[in-house]
Amino acid sequence: MQRIFEIDPWEVRTRQFDKKNKRLQESMTSIGNGYMGMRGFFEEDYSSDTLRGIYIGGVWFPDKTRVGWWKNGYPNYFGKVINAVNFIKTNLRLNDEPVDLATDVIRDFSLSLDMRQAILKRSFIVTKGQAQLKVSIERFVSAAQKELFVAGYRFENVGNAAFKVSVNTQIDAAVHNEDANYGESFWMVLDKTQNRTSGELTASTKENPFGTPRFIVGNQMIHVTDLAAEEMGGLPLAVQNQFSKELEPGGCAFFEKRVIVVTSRDYADRSRLTEAMHQLSNPLKSQSLDELRAAHTQVWHNRWEKSDVTIHGDDAAQQGIRFNLFQLFSTYYGEDDRLNIGPKGFTGEKYGGATYWDTEAFALPMYLGVTDSSVTRNLLMYRYIQLDGAFINAKQQGLKGALFPMVTFNGIECHNEWEITFEEIHRNGDIAFAIYNYTRYTGDRSYVLHEGSKVLTEIARFWADRVHFSARKGRYMIHGVTGPDEYQNNVNNNWYTNYLAKWTLNYTLKILDQVSPDQAERLAVSEWEKQKWREIADKMYLPEDKTLGIFVQDDDFLDKELKPVRDLPLDQLPLNQHWSWDKILRSCYIKQGDVLQGIWDFIDEFTPEQKKANFDFYEPLTVHESSLSASIHAILAADLKYEDKAVEMYERTSRLDLDNYNNDTSDGLHITSMTGSWLAIVQGFAGMRVRSEQLHFRPFLPRKWQRYQFRINFRNRIIDVAVAKEGAILTLISGEALTVFVNGRSVPLGSDPVKA
Amino acid sequence: MQRIFEIDPWEVRTRQFDKKNKRLQESMTSIGNGYMGMRGFFEEDYSSDTLRGIYIGGVWFPDKTRVGWWKNGYPNYFGKVINAVNFIKTNLRLNDEPVDLATDVIRDFSLSLDMRQAILKRSFIVTKGQAQLKVSIERFVSAAQKELFVAGYRFENVGNAAFKVSVNTQIDAAVHNEDANYGESFWMVLDKTQNRTSGELTASTKENPFGTPRFIVGNQMIHVTDLAAEEMGGLPLAVQNQFSKELEPGGCAFFEKRVIVVTSRDYADRSRLTEAMHQLSNPLKSQSLDELRAAHTQVWHNRWEKSDVTIHGDDAAQQGIRFNLFQLFSTYYGEDDRLNIGPKGFTGEKYGGATYWDTEAFALPMYLGVTDSSVTRNLLMYRYIQLDGAFINAKQQGLKGALFPMVTFNGIECHNEWEITFEEIHRNGDIAFAIYNYTRYTGDRSYVLHEGSKVLTEIARFWADRVHFSARKGRYMIHGVTGPDEYQNNVNNNWYTNYLAKWTLNYTLKILDQVSPDQAERLAVSEWEKQKWREIADKMYLPEDKTLGIFVQDDDFLDKELKPVRDLPLDQLPLNQHWSWDKILRSCYIKQGDVLQGIWDFIDEFTPEQKKANFDFYEPLTVHESSLSASIHAILAADLKYEDKAVEMYERTSRLDLDNYNNDTSDGLHITSMTGSWLAIVQGFAGMRVRSEQLHFRPFLPRKWQRYQFRINFRNRIIDVAVAKEGAILTLISGEALTVFVNGRSVPLGSDPVKA
Repeated sequence: MQRIFEIDPWEVRTRQFDKKNKRLQESMTSIGNGYMGMRGFFEEDYSSDTLRGIYIGGVWFPDKTRVGWWKNGYPNYFGKVINAVNFIKTNLRLNDEPVDLATDVIRDFSLSLDMRQAILKRSFIVTKGQAQLKVSIERFVSAAQKELFVAGYRFENVGNAAFKVSVNTQIDAAVHNEDANYGESFWMVLDKTQNRTSGELTASTKENPFGTPRFIVGNQMIHVTDLAAEEMGGLPLAVQNQFSKELEPGGCAFFEKRVIVVTSRDYADRSRLTEAMHQLSNPLKSQSLDELRAAHTQVWHNRWEKSDVTIHGDDAAQQGIRFNLFQLFSTYYGEDDRLNIGPKGFTGEKYGGATYWDTEAFALPMYLGVTDSSVTRNLLMYRYIQLDGAFINAKQQGLKGALFPMVTFNGIECHNEWEITFEEIHRNGDIAFAIYNYTRYTGDRSYVLHEGSKVLTEIARFWADRVHFSARKGRYMIHGVTGPDEYQNNVNNNWYTNYLAKWTLNYTLKILDQVSPDQAERLAVSEWEKQKWREIADKMYLPEDKTLGIFVQDDDFLDKELKPVRDLPLDQLPLNQHWSWDKILRSCYIKQGDVLQGIWDFIDEFTPEQKKANFDFYEPLTVHESSLSASIHAILAADLKYEDKAVEMYERTSRLDLDNYNNDTSDGLHITSMTGSWLAIVQGFAGMRVRSEQLHFRPFLPRKWQRYQFRINFRNRIIDVAVAKEGAILTLISGEALTVFVNGRSVPLGSDPVKA
Repeated sequence: MQRIFEIDPWEVRTRQFDKKNKRLQESMTSIGNGYMGMRGFFEEDYSSDTLRGIYIGGVWFPDKTRVGWWKNGYPNYFGKVINAVNFIKTNLRLNDEPVDLATDVIRDFSLSLDMRQAILKRSFIVTKGQAQLKVSIERFVSAAQKELFVAGYRFENVGNAAFKVSVNTQIDAAVHNEDANYGESFWMVLDKTQNRTSGELTASTKENPFGTPRFIVGNQMIHVTDLAAEEMGGLPLAVQNQFSKELEPGGCAFFEKRVIVVTSRDYADRSRLTEAMHQLSNPLKSQSLDELRAAHTQVWHNRWEKSDVTIHGDDAAQQGIRFNLFQLFSTYYGEDDRLNIGPKGFTGEKYGGATYWDTEAFALPMYLGVTDSSVTRNLLMYRYIQLDGAFINAKQQGLKGALFPMVTFNGIECHNEWEITFEEIHRNGDIAFAIYNYTRYTGDRSYVLHEGSKVLTEIARFWADRVHFSARKGRYMIHGVTGPDEYQNNVNNNWYTNYLAKWTLNYTLKILDQVSPDQAERLAVSEWEKQKWREIADKMYLPEDKTLGIFVQDDDFLDKELKPVRDLPLDQLPLNQHWSWDKILRSCYIKQGDVLQGIWDFIDEFTPEQKKANFDFYEPLTVHESSLSASIHAILAADLKYEDKAVEMYERTSRLDLDNYNNDTSDGLHITSMTGSWLAIVQGFAGMRVRSEQLHFRPFLPRKWQRYQFRINFRNRIIDVAVAKEGAILTLISGEALTVFVNGRSVPLGSDPVKA
């Protein structure tokens, strides 16, 4: 654990300039607007360790992964979101000497991420000889206009000597990815134009041998300032403007940079792209910073209004949950159904900014509760749009139907570990489950009966082809898979995968009975096919140990040496940093819930005894070395009334990044696992479930808290739930009256708060 | 099947210049002398498809394999034998126009590999305008002096017009590997000197980030010719000499190139290396081509004398077995205990020229029979010398003892598939078994009681740490392995691996009882350790199915869909070219014998019923897509008196390359599997076994053959075995009298042939 920011309910703030933890600071002060985002790196050059990163959603590159051995069905490339052209670059000079916080004498440093307004602020006083300059910077990517980045500077002479302050502002295409497999750069400049006070640069991703689309990104910067513009020469890979002014003691100046970023994802035609860029930047010349900021913060105000969570009696927990919500909304708010939620969002290069099953399994359940159903519907549409890619993935394995990818940008698998890409196929079931989950929560059947029925049918076809019949056991089996517990690879009959496959077949059959005749005709599922699915579902092998009363993670799991995590020497944890992969694979240690993931998904289908036996068996073997692990354990522990365990697991998920629990936040934030703290509070502590179209709660208050309160969106209503020592208070904030259930008792909700 | 060379008992010859199959021709006409070797590519530039390849044993480079994901215990690099500096390069000009067989008009082409003499010969007549030049070339790498390459040219004017013939001869360091992961070249030139009639070039392998040794190779060429030398300028990466002469009609000329190649493997000091190169090349100036050739062919004469196999009634089979022996001896004849037998020898880049378990499992059993025991002893020494690397490999997995590598040059694992490198650990048992096999065959106990006891002890320590105890089954198990059947990965309790581990522990315990007190002290195996080994061996889990009467390949094998290969559509074979890896892994199809590999190793430990049940069960599921597969099936089929199957399997191994059975010989020859045809004849058809220090035979004659005959070396005797329709005739060619057993009856062998 490492805490470098102050505890504050609405801010992530420090007054320490911590060079050693620069990357960690940068990760934590990331901002984004779903369309694009960036790490909290400095606008100006910094001559010591830093990870500069600006990312644009859906702009990616297929990096090479050739390694000498290749087998049929292996993915061809490793896709990664690439570090965008650096359009925030803004160098400062004081009396013609560069300002560089790595080496300069500075004081009164402050760095603060204002989560309510979604603005990153920084200020400091730099001294060079007699000159003392105070610099205050704010920046944001507009939530009101996705293409807009704004940075505002205020300069003040706080010393006794006059000096010259200069600003050199650029759009710089000389960027690279640290994780490029072979040090290649991914950008080439197509066009650049530089005027006295503005500039534009259009770049495209380089050609690649895999035939994936190339992207063009246009960047235009304009400036509003009381500094004087200077004539500047060109640069090979950048455009630049420069401004300067003499400041007398006490004198001030301001400088504002506004950048429009458009891409060929929205404007396929090159001239349309340029035209759009100009059209979007034109009005910016007459709008004030206050206007731009106000439009942006209003959007954030509305978001918080709908979804804020408050915790009394634990400011660290309060900050944790807000930070998580803030970063999630910065990454995804459902505006674009071609985009999804990368495990690190716009905060780092790792995991290539691609889409994983994290979205359906961990993000969707939270977004259901905190946003309009249109947001989560777009997450489902994302997969529907990518069905063609999923057909290709299945076909590459010689299988029928659709195999949604483990890692993707365009629907086609683009990761490079065989034991994951064509073995961790439970994801196909998770995507089916998300359709059910969405429909159950929102009551909106329009997706499942149309696009959803197509997705389900093709997933069912995949499962029906992927199973085989074991004559010896008289059961259908699924061999050669990797479950959510990626610390066991290539196992046979992973209970979770088999259970999901069986469930998907049954659910699809049920939906097929409900679709319109037209849709049924389009889906063209024959009676024979349905009969086959029924037979597979009926005869699916689900490993179980009657003596232990548990479902067995996979065929040979119980033959392992079974020793609880608490018996391991502490210096061997985390295992993935201390043990060989060989040793991990052979051990009984579980990276993240596997059987328990299934029990969470289908929590109402199991008896309390079953839930208890499985939790008691598996949790002690679980090392929680995936950031996704803690939340479902918190929920299940709460369900079993293991309050201490629930709180322990909550704390692990809530401040995972703020306290750098896994010692890897410098790479970027664990975006998809950030939903975990919300889920732990709402599904865990408050025990929220949807059963038969109705909302149920079974709340408890963690001992060290005085009260917690959250708002959920449920079927066009906003409901406020407050849980305090004296009980729960539910308030219908907006929408029609409805009845909910608290601890099994019905509670009608109208306009007044109800104690339950 | 594709046959591009004529059938001939001693030659591999064609009169067709087959441009389409140029690489295949090159592979088949490879030559080598254990120290170095080369494909049959042309000395002169060839402007169409060709794979130039010269390789020097033990000179390798650690190629990069970074792919974005890495886990503890993964190997760091992918080692490969690199394409050496091209010292055979010799361009020809006719009237100052280059001779290029890809485009020139040629006739009377002949290409012939003389296997008896180990000389590659080529001749052709090239016509340019009025000029008609006949070129005859012979080349060999000397078996008498390892550093020596010789090429002899004869030119003849066979037309009616005079012309000028010119020879430009080079040592060229501008070479690369086709399989370099990222197109890098591996050589840098250190030094080059060029005189009027000779030249030398010293190059070293480039720096690498893995800290593996760099190699320096010195090449010196001298020339003997009646052509006139010309003064030539320098080249950036090569040295060159040039000679020419006017030839009248009917006129002749000769040109001889002699190259000395020395390496830092033999001369660590740079100046010693240069000195040695000069010392070795000096006498060449006064020796004639005939002398050099005679010294070389004498060595080969002696080899054939000891080991020739003759087959009457099947010239194709005759050519097949000789070709295999020729290529094996060209690759390895035991002179250098730091070298080993790469799967493709000096004939191609694939498999990186490294050492695999092929050596112990398939090559050693044959070399035992055809060479002095010193040759096979050196193969055992190779592993002893590399023990330090094996300690590192085990330690990387967090395990005790020694884990010999799957792929290596220096003892350290250098391949990059986790499911192979730290899972295909049966190799450790194969290396132990090879010690036993050597000792049993040769009667030489000096290795096993000294170096061998150390190797065995450290392997035993590895096994003892690699097993775990399954409380549920009360047995020791080995999880997470890949057996010889690489079409199933990461399985649990592979019968072959478990059996070998158990056997190794028992054998090591037995040897420890026999070593000297001094050696025992050095090995420092405690009583507690021995007790532990005994317990593991006693309680090792060996999967078995009593109903089927078979040993089970691994835990879940019998849950697969079991369907014989003959029921597969022919257009899906070979599976590895038609099925996804996913489908292959989940199928029941076996790449090469796995349980049957164990039954071959320990053939006298199983009852005829056991052998039959297992063969009948597994062979029909086996696709033989490893070139190593056919031979042991031939032997077991012969053992079971399945003569047709034995002959089918023999034919598959005998002419695998000559008939390009697997359609991949253009990459290089399948050197290590070439032992298979010899093993199929000797252990299969002739039924040779060693039992209780004595030699047993149980011969039969394949129906289409009239007779076969082979010689084996057994405990300082050469025994000739001839099998004809009328029975077997055994002759003691040299060495003391001994008694052998034929069909269970004792046959005393003296100086006269004995009919048995």
